[in-house]
Amino acid sequence: MSQEFATGLPSVRQVQNLIRDHAPIEVKLITGDVITGRVVWQDPQCICIQTEDQSKHQIWKQAIGFLKYS
Amino acid sequence: MSQEFATGLPSVRQVQNLIRDHAPIEVKLITGDVITGRVVWQDPQCICIQTEDQSKHQIWKQAIGFLKYS
Amino acid sequence: MSQEFATGLPSVRQVQNLIRDHAPIEVKLITGDVITGRVVWQDPQCICIQTEDQSKHQIWKQAIGFLKYS
Amino acid sequence: MSQEFATGLPSVRQVQNLIRDHAPIEVKLITGDVITGRVVWQDPQCICIQTEDQSKHQIWKQAIGFLKYS
Amino acid sequence: MSQEFATGLPSVRQVQNLIRDHAPIEVKLITGDVITGRVVWQDPQCICIQTEDQSKHQIWKQAIGFLKYS
Amino acid sequence: MSQEFATGLPSVRQVQNLIRDHAPIEVKLITGDVITGRVVWQDPQCICIQTEDQSKHQIWKQAIGFLKYS
Repeated sequence: MSQEFATGLPSVRQVQNLIRDHAPIEVKLITGDVITGRVVWQDPQCICIQTEDQSKHQIWKQAIGFLKYS
Repeated sequence: MSQEFATGLPSVRQVQNLIRDHAPIEVKLITGDVITGRVVWQDPQCICIQTEDQSKHQIWKQAIGFLKYS
Repeated sequence: MSQEFATGLPSVRQVQNLIRDHAPIEVKLITGDVITGRVVWQDPQCICIQTEDQSKHQIWKQAIGFLKYS
Repeated sequence: MSQEFATGLPSVRQVQNLIRDHAPIEVKLITGDVITGRVVWQDPQCICIQTEDQSKHQIWKQAIGFLKYS
Repeated sequence: MSQEFATGLPSVRQVQNLIRDHAPIEVKLITGDVITGRVVWQDPQCICIQTEDQSKHQIWKQAIGFLKYS
Repeated sequence: MSQEFATGLPSVRQVQNLIRDHAPIEVKLITGDVITGRVVWQDPQCICIQTEDQSKHQIWKQAIGFLKYS
């Protein structure tokens, strides 16, 4: 996958806002896992979430069911 | 994924109609989750559903089984 | 995904025939769901099935295991 | 997906041989289903299997785990 | 998928070595199946494994979790 | 998939750092498997993990839920 990142898309912009606001989110994966934390960074392939225990979860976007946020 | 959005496709137009009409829908995900609410926006990668408790679910289209609507 | 639709492919033509003939079919999804009804439309991303209760199921092709028909 | 079909690939040629030889095969899907029968046709997206009861199963290749044959 | 095969990639070269060495491997599929045997051939879409009972398993790479080898 | 490898992406760079630092990581797959070890190499398609028993696990990136590291 090239480095082209469609920053104009709402789905990308929305995650950028979550990063900017350090907003708490919930990620439901197709593995059934639910990961709660804050988004540290994103790129076309992955989203990185830092959980309360400070560990990093590099999640592949193709494995995401949904992000839940208020 | 580039910002190209095939608005001519029935599958995209149909979701635009659901957004315009604030129609209630049911989304069945490949995780087994069923999310009920109204579509807030869509782009080539995601659909955003607002549920009754006002929380937002940003759903990746690749994780959708089907949308059900009348 | 662009609006290019490979109507020459047997897999696309076969579904067009099912639409034309209003043929009853069974769709098995990777969610485990089985949806029975008639195909209303298709495009490169989705197939829309109308079930007996008249509700519409917009199914993403990437979530289909198989279509069964006689 | 365009109509380009990589007939030079072993994976495509192998299925063409199964069609030519009317060879019995077993298809294991990521849904967990196992479908036994003979390949009727294939294209870049799907394989069509006819089972003993003469019904047709149009299987999306992205839902296939493996084909088993002797 | 075109006939372009990225033989320069470690992931492709590694499987070529397994073919050359007739090395025994274990393939874990996203269906949960574990197939043990030797790699007969690979192409951009599939890997073919021959198991002890001489039957062939044509596995789609998109259905592979991992290959395990020593 | 061509040999183009987007080394500029955070998701790729992050894994390169894990390789350089021989950092212990946990990989959760969509099969439900959890593989713990050190990353040996990566390319656009796969990541190779060596586990404590020295066996190699060539994991397809499309089968990864997430990588967990501190």
